[in-house]
Amino acid sequence: MAAGLARTRVTRVRWTDASGEDSAAPQVSRREDVVAREEPLEIRIGGTSWSVTMRTPGDDFDLVAGFLVSEGVIAAPSELMSLRYCAGFDEHGRREENTYNVIDAVLGRGAIPPDEAGARHSTTTSACGICGTTSIDAVGKQSRFDVAGDDIRVDADLLASLPDALREHQALFDRTGGVHAAGLFAASGDLLCLREDVGRHNAVDKVVGWGVREGRLPLRGTILQVSGRASFELVQKARLAGIPILAAVSAPSSLAVDLAKESGMTLLGFSRGQSFTVYTRPDRIL
Amino acid sequence: MAAGLARTRVTRVRWTDASGEDSAAPQVSRREDVVAREEPLEIRIGGTSWSVTMRTPGDDFDLVAGFLVSEGVIAAPSELMSLRYCAGFDEHGRREENTYNVIDAVLGRGAIPPDEAGARHSTTTSACGICGTTSIDAVGKQSRFDVAGDDIRVDADLLASLPDALREHQALFDRTGGVHAAGLFAASGDLLCLREDVGRHNAVDKVVGWGVREGRLPLRGTILQVSGRASFELVQKARLAGIPILAAVSAPSSLAVDLAKESGMTLLGFSRGQSFTVYTRPDRIL
Repeated sequence: MAAGLARTRVTRVRWTDASGEDSAAPQVSRREDVVAREEPLEIRIGGTSWSVTMRTPGDDFDLVAGFLVSEGVIAAPSELMSLRYCAGFDEHGRREENTYNVIDAVLGRGAIPPDEAGARHSTTTSACGICGTTSIDAVGKQSRFDVAGDDIRVDADLLASLPDALREHQALFDRTGGVHAAGLFAASGDLLCLREDVGRHNAVDKVVGWGVREGRLPLRGTILQVSGRASFELVQKARLAGIPILAAVSAPSSLAVDLAKESGMTLLGFSRGQSFTVYTRPDRIL
Repeated sequence: MAAGLARTRVTRVRWTDASGEDSAAPQVSRREDVVAREEPLEIRIGGTSWSVTMRTPGDDFDLVAGFLVSEGVIAAPSELMSLRYCAGFDEHGRREENTYNVIDAVLGRGAIPPDEAGARHSTTTSACGICGTTSIDAVGKQSRFDVAGDDIRVDADLLASLPDALREHQALFDRTGGVHAAGLFAASGDLLCLREDVGRHNAVDKVVGWGVREGRLPLRGTILQVSGRASFELVQKARLAGIPILAAVSAPSSLAVDLAKESGMTLLGFSRGQSFTVYTRPDRIL
């Protein structure tokens, strides 16, 4: 059984019979089912605990690297010296068996330590915290990359085909119906990287982490297609990775639109094969 | 325009003509559209900044109260002395106009300060953080309420009707297609409280916050129906509010199932009118 899956026994109740016809009385069956695995991952930086995130195991190094990019800590492979699973010991000094839920990251030259990265994007000057600033100033992070100047141009037909292309490759979703996906595509439509996770944000971090570990940041000339909605944070993650086009199967929020506008990113929503809505920078679409 | 909504101009691209027939060439139109509002909310406790969360404005006091319950800080109205929007001043000592994104909570007797609440649920004893514990021990929070002993019994037909009942009342979703909802129902099927938000967790926190502010915790004999998936955190929120049945329109994660099992909570997934799947405690369903 794949790392991202877990078995469980369930009771299924339905108001249709074996032939699919409606039935007045509910049909009850017991069976074995599969659910998406969710486990905590503790991320350490240089041995010090930094963050605990709930995630679907698999592509953990990509997840940690991408999270470091999203938090403004790293933006190049040289800024991440190493990633390793923690070799743990229990209270009696015995070596732990399962140490796959703790990863230690050692930063390299050029990385901005998390405290400093946090301070840099906290531009608040007022006595009242985030009252005195615009929402984006309050929570936005500085990006080292410019997406506004990215001259990618993409056919509308190609953009419309991406949700199906994403869906085709969603191995965990096929088994569970319960995970999100993020897929990075070239302007030609070629799939560069696809990652799945119970968390929408994690799926994007895993893709971005793949990018930084491969030395591909900024991800110029690419399109990020995601399975769910487009929140402020997803736009921010795309921006910090230098991705010029973000397309979501569902709706964007107001702040996602605002940040995309400010960044010069093309933002698509309700991308569902037969139609899509463009919120910002439609000039990139042919 | 409602607080939870914002207007934006969009470009719509579709491969169907005005009569709904497929067309080979994309039809492009410009129009005004509505998106769900997303804004940061800074939560302070006794004047000290504690957390910043992205949320849809509206029911902010419920959100903060519910978040305090979910973090194990409060569980009764007397433990929350007051909630107020911060009256801010800018760097020149002038009163700020928009102070609706900062709320200050003053805790009352019996509340467990966040640091202490955090320490109480960190049961880790091993040298290697969360390696040495089960996942639930590592990230689970203690609840003051027992849901295992709740003797609620509900008809399967009633449970099957709740997703539609939730959908009927989703005012923001109707306008935007982009928000989650959580609805609290009595065993009779009566809707007690419904809240919407761009964040799944926030919608649940708003419902729980309504409950604690109304002095109704533990929410014995109730069913929480949510619009999305059931993650570990949603089960945890329901547990800390004393809700015995959680039903999700989409899939649960493995850790959501594990925590529901440990808590004695009834967990339903894929609840879609014509059928649902029961992961734990099916004995409550008639």
